[in-house]
Amino acid sequence: MPLSNTRPARTPTGDPWLLTPGPLTTSPTVKQAMLHDLGSRDKTFIDVTQRMREQLLGIVADRGTHECVLLQGSGTFIVEAMIACFVPRDGKLLVLVNGAYGQRICRIAEVAGRPFSVLEWAENEPVDVVALDQALSADPAITHVTVIHCETTSGILNPIAQIADVVANHCRGLLIDSMSAFGALELDCNALPFDAVVASSNKCLEGVPGMGFCIARREALVKTQGNAQALSLDLYAQWQGFEQNGQWRFTPPVQCLLAFDQALTEFEAEGGVAGRGSRYRENRDRLVNGMRELGFQTLLPDELQAPIIVTFLMPSHPAFDFARFYELLSDAGYVIYPGKLTVADSFRIGCIGRLGVKQIDGALRCISHALESLGVELAAKATV
Amino acid sequence: MPLSNTRPARTPTGDPWLLTPGPLTTSPTVKQAMLHDLGSRDKTFIDVTQRMREQLLGIVADRGTHECVLLQGSGTFIVEAMIACFVPRDGKLLVLVNGAYGQRICRIAEVAGRPFSVLEWAENEPVDVVALDQALSADPAITHVTVIHCETTSGILNPIAQIADVVANHCRGLLIDSMSAFGALELDCNALPFDAVVASSNKCLEGVPGMGFCIARREALVKTQGNAQALSLDLYAQWQGFEQNGQWRFTPPVQCLLAFDQALTEFEAEGGVAGRGSRYRENRDRLVNGMRELGFQTLLPDELQAPIIVTFLMPSHPAFDFARFYELLSDAGYVIYPGKLTVADSFRIGCIGRLGVKQIDGALRCISHALESLGVELAAKATV
Repeated sequence: MPLSNTRPARTPTGDPWLLTPGPLTTSPTVKQAMLHDLGSRDKTFIDVTQRMREQLLGIVADRGTHECVLLQGSGTFIVEAMIACFVPRDGKLLVLVNGAYGQRICRIAEVAGRPFSVLEWAENEPVDVVALDQALSADPAITHVTVIHCETTSGILNPIAQIADVVANHCRGLLIDSMSAFGALELDCNALPFDAVVASSNKCLEGVPGMGFCIARREALVKTQGNAQALSLDLYAQWQGFEQNGQWRFTPPVQCLLAFDQALTEFEAEGGVAGRGSRYRENRDRLVNGMRELGFQTLLPDELQAPIIVTFLMPSHPAFDFARFYELLSDAGYVIYPGKLTVADSFRIGCIGRLGVKQIDGALRCISHALESLGVELAAKATV
Repeated sequence: MPLSNTRPARTPTGDPWLLTPGPLTTSPTVKQAMLHDLGSRDKTFIDVTQRMREQLLGIVADRGTHECVLLQGSGTFIVEAMIACFVPRDGKLLVLVNGAYGQRICRIAEVAGRPFSVLEWAENEPVDVVALDQALSADPAITHVTVIHCETTSGILNPIAQIADVVANHCRGLLIDSMSAFGALELDCNALPFDAVVASSNKCLEGVPGMGFCIARREALVKTQGNAQALSLDLYAQWQGFEQNGQWRFTPPVQCLLAFDQALTEFEAEGGVAGRGSRYRENRDRLVNGMRELGFQTLLPDELQAPIIVTFLMPSHPAFDFARFYELLSDAGYVIYPGKLTVADSFRIGCIGRLGVKQIDGALRCISHALESLGVELAAKATV
């Protein structure tokens, strides 16, 4: 039985709204940019590639000290390329873990045969910079530190500026997985020292999935030569390819690139990081407030909650059936995300993509109807 | 100065025709399939993924003995995944080389640290199975043999069935890079024993670039567990992921997959390998005959020429300026491909993608005009 007699909500291209951490809802114009075939060695395409590399460097306010390397594949491909290229075979990596994506980096280091150690926190706790400082003092073998900027597992924001300071004080290299934060949260390479930061086309920059990118300090990138154990994931060789003739070494995802080019134009038009971040914060605040009014609780306190994805605790009400709840919302045109946490039974709702408070309000109405339909009345709701 | 007063040729989406080895011209409906956003963990998407794996297995006439593993990235990513996963660290690879893609596999083996030896021929010579037989007799350490089905460098067809027989007689594993042949040239896994064959979305199956696939004998695939040196390129883990919940381990290129799904529907509608191969052979024959009438010579004798891409020798006429020739054709709406050969100064024209003899005829007319415009009269032309 659907939630109401009204037709399900749909994006301009007729799809449900994706309240997920990405792949997410993109604008119609971003998708329309893919309606072309282009020779990947043609001047038009080389120009798109070059412009994109410069625009991405602009987002971290580069003043000629950094380089941007694009790479085919999903976000994990560029994370893996960063780890295997920047940490030399005789180096040692310290992985700061407070969620599934930190765990994944441990696995990447293990498969690549890179020595590593781990500092771990619960999924609802941010990285503790005092512990990091102590760990770096205690182990001079550590050459690099890696951290997830915003852990999508919980939606927690790690204290990236403080982490960068501590790592810089110890003269180690910092490798940032900013997959789900890049473009929405500020990351100024002049204020925040890092060797490399990676992200992908299909998160806060609102393109479609199919490519990632690495922004690296040139001096650190130069030193990665020969470190890669996979030709495809060799960031140094990929960079040299772009420098030599502006071309991708291997077939690029042409249409994904055309979409990303359009997405970057729309990103600039929205006011870059400030504009994009502001819309996402509005989405998050509306979502959190609305959900609290309905009686849901967030996993994280507000000060740790990034404006990317919000984790809500699963209600303890006996009639709350998550599979049914998910299905009712999906039928109504809003796709949310099942949780992945170990600390708490939970589910997640994303605030990113080409959507605003109107869609958040629509989702909240459907969530309210879904609760009614399930016969669930949550504590706080009665007090509203 | 353009070739004539007529407007340049354009595809239905307003692009020049790509007479290249791919990325190539796809149908408008393939591109339109990308006008949607879809959650990558949603049932709809899982269904597309599963259907695609089955359809691809159908192309090699699998009867339950093989598996299909999809992978993000370009063709080189899936070639590298095949080499690094199927050749164990204590194995030894024999690479059969007669072009740039064979050379690239040597580089992949080198970066992966896999012992390998090479049998090499000129770019206009096919693999010699007698030499292969001798090499396998002489070196029992060789565990796997790898070959390029159709070497795009020259467009040469390697004798894949004979190679498979020799390799099977010696009880070694055969790894086939069928990137630019799969879907247009028959490859029956019952008649032709192989451990793995790889190809990509953007060649003869006429999708857009962004993913590759590996079709592997299940027994051989099972043995690859633990061989990968990169988490992203681990075909065993990727396979297990699909088997467990139908999902991709890491974010899939959603729109590329939607396009490929449509491309496979159109492939079936054209009559599969027989239909697709037949159209490409018609394209090739029309192209070769027309070019010969204009006085051009092919690098390869007809019996070695695959219906994928044709290499023409650069005319020796002093007024023939290739850069200008390329530009004139490009302005007229036909993008050809500069050569990559070491044996001869040459250029290449592709016969694949969503195009037929009408487009080949259009290109031939423009080539004739271009010669006139350059003031080049080739020997044979006078005799026509």
